[in-house]
Amino acid sequence: MQLQLSTWPEVESYLQSSPGIIFPIGSTEQHGPTGLIGTDAICAEAIAKGVGEATGAMVGPTINVGMALHHLAFPGSVSLRPSTLIRVIVDYVSSLAPAGFSRFYFINGHGGNIATLKAAFSEAYHHLGSLGHSQNVRCHLGNWFMARGVYQLAKELYGDQEGHHATPSEVALTQFVYPEAIKTAPLNPEVASGHSIYSAQDFREHYSDGRMGSNPALATPEHGQRFYEVAVKELSESYQRFLAEN
Amino acid sequence: MQLQLSTWPEVESYLQSSPGIIFPIGSTEQHGPTGLIGTDAICAEAIAKGVGEATGAMVGPTINVGMALHHLAFPGSVSLRPSTLIRVIVDYVSSLAPAGFSRFYFINGHGGNIATLKAAFSEAYHHLGSLGHSQNVRCHLGNWFMARGVYQLAKELYGDQEGHHATPSEVALTQFVYPEAIKTAPLNPEVASGHSIYSAQDFREHYSDGRMGSNPALATPEHGQRFYEVAVKELSESYQRFLAEN
Amino acid sequence: MQLQLSTWPEVESYLQSSPGIIFPIGSTEQHGPTGLIGTDAICAEAIAKGVGEATGAMVGPTINVGMALHHLAFPGSVSLRPSTLIRVIVDYVSSLAPAGFSRFYFINGHGGNIATLKAAFSEAYHHLGSLGHSQNVRCHLGNWFMARGVYQLAKELYGDQEGHHATPSEVALTQFVYPEAIKTAPLNPEVASGHSIYSAQDFREHYSDGRMGSNPALATPEHGQRFYEVAVKELSESYQRFLAEN
Amino acid sequence: MQLQLSTWPEVESYLQSSPGIIFPIGSTEQHGPTGLIGTDAICAEAIAKGVGEATGAMVGPTINVGMALHHLAFPGSVSLRPSTLIRVIVDYVSSLAPAGFSRFYFINGHGGNIATLKAAFSEAYHHLGSLGHSQNVRCHLGNWFMARGVYQLAKELYGDQEGHHATPSEVALTQFVYPEAIKTAPLNPEVASGHSIYSAQDFREHYSDGRMGSNPALATPEHGQRFYEVAVKELSESYQRFLAEN
Amino acid sequence: MQLQLSTWPEVESYLQSSPGIIFPIGSTEQHGPTGLIGTDAICAEAIAKGVGEATGAMVGPTINVGMALHHLAFPGSVSLRPSTLIRVIVDYVSSLAPAGFSRFYFINGHGGNIATLKAAFSEAYHHLGSLGHSQNVRCHLGNWFMARGVYQLAKELYGDQEGHHATPSEVALTQFVYPEAIKTAPLNPEVASGHSIYSAQDFREHYSDGRMGSNPALATPEHGQRFYEVAVKELSESYQRFLAEN
Amino acid sequence: MQLQLSTWPEVESYLQSSPGIIFPIGSTEQHGPTGLIGTDAICAEAIAKGVGEATGAMVGPTINVGMALHHLAFPGSVSLRPSTLIRVIVDYVSSLAPAGFSRFYFINGHGGNIATLKAAFSEAYHHLGSLGHSQNVRCHLGNWFMARGVYQLAKELYGDQEGHHATPSEVALTQFVYPEAIKTAPLNPEVASGHSIYSAQDFREHYSDGRMGSNPALATPEHGQRFYEVAVKELSESYQRFLAEN
Repeated sequence: MQLQLSTWPEVESYLQSSPGIIFPIGSTEQHGPTGLIGTDAICAEAIAKGVGEATGAMVGPTINVGMALHHLAFPGSVSLRPSTLIRVIVDYVSSLAPAGFSRFYFINGHGGNIATLKAAFSEAYHHLGSLGHSQNVRCHLGNWFMARGVYQLAKELYGDQEGHHATPSEVALTQFVYPEAIKTAPLNPEVASGHSIYSAQDFREHYSDGRMGSNPALATPEHGQRFYEVAVKELSESYQRFLAEN
Repeated sequence: MQLQLSTWPEVESYLQSSPGIIFPIGSTEQHGPTGLIGTDAICAEAIAKGVGEATGAMVGPTINVGMALHHLAFPGSVSLRPSTLIRVIVDYVSSLAPAGFSRFYFINGHGGNIATLKAAFSEAYHHLGSLGHSQNVRCHLGNWFMARGVYQLAKELYGDQEGHHATPSEVALTQFVYPEAIKTAPLNPEVASGHSIYSAQDFREHYSDGRMGSNPALATPEHGQRFYEVAVKELSESYQRFLAEN
Repeated sequence: MQLQLSTWPEVESYLQSSPGIIFPIGSTEQHGPTGLIGTDAICAEAIAKGVGEATGAMVGPTINVGMALHHLAFPGSVSLRPSTLIRVIVDYVSSLAPAGFSRFYFINGHGGNIATLKAAFSEAYHHLGSLGHSQNVRCHLGNWFMARGVYQLAKELYGDQEGHHATPSEVALTQFVYPEAIKTAPLNPEVASGHSIYSAQDFREHYSDGRMGSNPALATPEHGQRFYEVAVKELSESYQRFLAEN
Repeated sequence: MQLQLSTWPEVESYLQSSPGIIFPIGSTEQHGPTGLIGTDAICAEAIAKGVGEATGAMVGPTINVGMALHHLAFPGSVSLRPSTLIRVIVDYVSSLAPAGFSRFYFINGHGGNIATLKAAFSEAYHHLGSLGHSQNVRCHLGNWFMARGVYQLAKELYGDQEGHHATPSEVALTQFVYPEAIKTAPLNPEVASGHSIYSAQDFREHYSDGRMGSNPALATPEHGQRFYEVAVKELSESYQRFLAEN
Repeated sequence: MQLQLSTWPEVESYLQSSPGIIFPIGSTEQHGPTGLIGTDAICAEAIAKGVGEATGAMVGPTINVGMALHHLAFPGSVSLRPSTLIRVIVDYVSSLAPAGFSRFYFINGHGGNIATLKAAFSEAYHHLGSLGHSQNVRCHLGNWFMARGVYQLAKELYGDQEGHHATPSEVALTQFVYPEAIKTAPLNPEVASGHSIYSAQDFREHYSDGRMGSNPALATPEHGQRFYEVAVKELSESYQRFLAEN
Repeated sequence: MQLQLSTWPEVESYLQSSPGIIFPIGSTEQHGPTGLIGTDAICAEAIAKGVGEATGAMVGPTINVGMALHHLAFPGSVSLRPSTLIRVIVDYVSSLAPAGFSRFYFINGHGGNIATLKAAFSEAYHHLGSLGHSQNVRCHLGNWFMARGVYQLAKELYGDQEGHHATPSEVALTQFVYPEAIKTAPLNPEVASGHSIYSAQDFREHYSDGRMGSNPALATPEHGQRFYEVAVKELSESYQRFLAEN
């Protein structure tokens, strides 16, 4: 059930049976010479819709821009500052909590969002609590790329060439979702890896084409479908455990 | 050309020929008993993609949540505070300006966003200027529902029953985009109208089912297609004038 | 009744009979070669006092500096950032609401304030609501220069030479209020017009002497008095309708 | 020379001979049963104009609302939060510094503003410095009520009955400026004194009519004129020393 | 070399040979019935001083209060909001970077700080970059309790009774540092474990005495010394690798 | 009783008998060629512990970094912006007030903190009040260097050579606390004095070695002990008066 395709009386009915809502959150950032700039949002959105279908959960609109400051030296990347993203999350949760939503499950497609989202959850609980709302609100971070089955499949299919950014697994998933947007380009086999992430300029100096130890040329739409199915299954279970938690 | 479906080298190429980018911005808010909560985002996104196709412009990801604080007394509505939305826009513009984007065209689907977006543009120019960036960046607000042809068509089709929120024109457009999500419900013909907008609670007291003087039951997908075509045509011309402005 | 010239027991008495207060808000910004930098504040203040006398309303102190970032390339202009002005308005409203003021009527002399003020009103309602205050507070924006009679009179007296900034109508009003401060200077008849407003630097490049399509040399103190009287009359009626609104 | 009554070319000329500007800053807050709510702004404005006349300094528009959070339990008081006032001052200074103003002299009428203004000056220097502006900007705080001659005159005229808020000296000055707004009311001779200032509620509990140890019934317009003359003289000298400082 | 015990000329000399500085960061929060409220700060400070001695690094003053919002339902806990802590870190880094410090190594004693610190590092890089500073600044997060040797030793000494908060390992370390402050109290052997962390109220409901699955009664000062030595050794190596990174 | 060396049940017990807590606040800033960068924090911490012992008060962890923006042109100085420090103080007070702490006594070692702390206290009272907390919270600022006995002793020992920054009195106190960190260096007897404090760059231009009119070579550890004893005695009495205030 998609929030954007529902009416408010339908939401009111939904809240009779569940306090849960899923928000896909991605990023708008370079993903190497062949990866789509929207990769993280595309993956999160597709999986969130799948989880919504599997569980009957309400799925909110995708948060397309996240925390990608370190990618800004590549054209087309867009980022919120962490302090901005924290405010955004606080506003989302504060908007919906008075109506009865109290279980917020974020399906995340971008490693760079994790720290800020966790910080934002703390800020949101405190914000609601200080305003005298019930302290019953809970947020959960579901990173699809860190699901056990996803990790195992990536290992099996790509071994060390999975890398850490512009990975074949995420590229595969976007190929499954948007087969019309599969890109090819010569990829230097000598891909940088292992350097820590600091400023945007430092990032580009060390990762000159944007990849981090990955070989996205290995990706196929068929792989993408497998990742999709594994991720939907695992995150659906995770969402249901989250709702059931005492 | 969609930013989310492009690679960074493609963006780099694009910037050789154009400094323009279009961002659809909507809202996630109640649209009466039959209107979709995502109406404003759905309309803005569809039209922005159409304008992108017509003009070759780069189209960024949709900003799905805007300034809808006055709708928060209806379940399912989500809003940023104006001060948050200003930061978001400043971050978007500041991310892309250093790469060479200097013409930001926002296709807006929500009247409630207008004031905050205009304020945000001023803040963004000043922010960039104070940091020593070229003061060459320009933002433009393209409200599809205020395009002359759209207005005339709505008048012709619906007369006074167009109203001001949950209008048949916007509902029609969502029916054209998502025919599978056409909703029906009994609509009280005595719909409130003419009350100013203040707090969320005040809004709901005066507009009990969420509509403002509108009769969305008049909407049809065929109307929606006509609105879409008129809006794409007018906003494409507007976008091109914006790029050509000296 | 001026707040600044009242005692707190007098305010307490006033609140027994009315919850309304008027705040004049202007700007401190260039108004071309002959217009006063305080034009917008001077006009708003004079009209607000007139409305206060006509209606018995409490009139607060003038907000002399508004949102004029686009004028900052001319010396003497002062501006708040939109995000600052939003905080200022939230603080004003939050200060007075607990005492019983619930109808805030802003008499505005500057087009550049409109967007930010509207955004600020939304933020103020939400702020008060989230703190558990009654959501009964209402703000209204009364732009004197957009009053019907003012518009008609300007059209009649100046036709196309009214322009959009440093207009003869506002200059006339300041001449009426401060006849000792009437300035003259040669005005280039080829005045720029029609360019959109972006950054401060862009503004000055396109509007080299600060005027926007106007011929303030047409202004006279007698015109100013007529504008004053029309504006006071119309805004007094508007204020009373605002108080009477259900 | 008043900024509000000048044109931008006049400001440009002024800057050829002086980098100085004076801003009166007051407060909008209760001043006991007979003191005007605008007392602090009225005094600061009158003295600033006097100093402007005596020294030829540019005088900016009055900042009418300051930091008066502790007075908010009395109706009619308005306050900015300290964090808001800091932003306001940073915006003022940042607006004018690029044009060439580098000596900002604030004539202050309210003790409660002192701490926040000093903090704001530090924030403003740092803000400008971090943006790469010359670190040549200087701000000075001139509290008229702390001028030596003012203090001595108050001691001589009122002795211990000067008190610390709603003092006869400031009331006298407002009587001199606005003789038409002289208020009388029975004043309890047992006026509270000596309690520290904490929250607004605590303030009202300890200072039930708003005075702090003062007897404003002693004030006369003639006293007010003497305070005015002493303050103008001392602050004019102080302003000139400020400009001359190496 | 401790920053607090150095003079500025000594710092100037130090910068000739190293751009590195270590900041201990802890928290001020409940640590169960027997753990010290300052546990996280005490551990971080002791280890940081040890690393400073081992490597010759400059060690800054301890950041005693971190992100502990979820502990606030226990008396004595103090927390910054994440958005505040981000500003604090940005200010620290921005203060020292212009002087030549470019390698900031935070020795952290509190799991709850991790997310916010990572977010703060991103915000700091971006802040400096946007102001035109060299993007050469790097921050590193060294969590002593996650060092491999520490983990192994805790496993060996305490097995499953190490738990996740108020752990015997951190308690032991504080006993080593402050043997005069060893506390005892009856500890319920049925200690809660495994519940996720949400709001402060939720935390206290699920972890009634503040421990998370731990048995701090196992701690001894001798264990503490072993943890100290392992942590100093590992983090010293980590700090030196950080400085040597290309 | 030190908060950092207490358990939460001990804090709970303490609150049965007292609502008071003392926070030492210093600064991390240059103190001339021989003064320690941590001087202000060291002094505040030592005296606060002394006051805690003398009065049985709870003493919180030291706030090591304060408002020292004007010292940032000397390496090793660290500062919060005033707006950041205000947030920090608001967070501290808001964390502890719900648990029952209502008397916050800050022992301050740095003149540059005074304005911002006073502003922060006002912001904290208002913040708590607006959230509906009891407005019973009180903060007090105890500047040890302004205690009468301290001032007299400094006058007696050093006369005019006490100066205003890097004073022999504060240096002496650090020598008493850290006799192992006594520094010597040639001090130019022609020390600057009397220049107002503006930007960091301006400060360094006028105070080239960081001292302001002081001769810290006069300091001895024995003096330091005398200052310590006087300050502890006076501030203990002040703290007790603060608690006893009605």
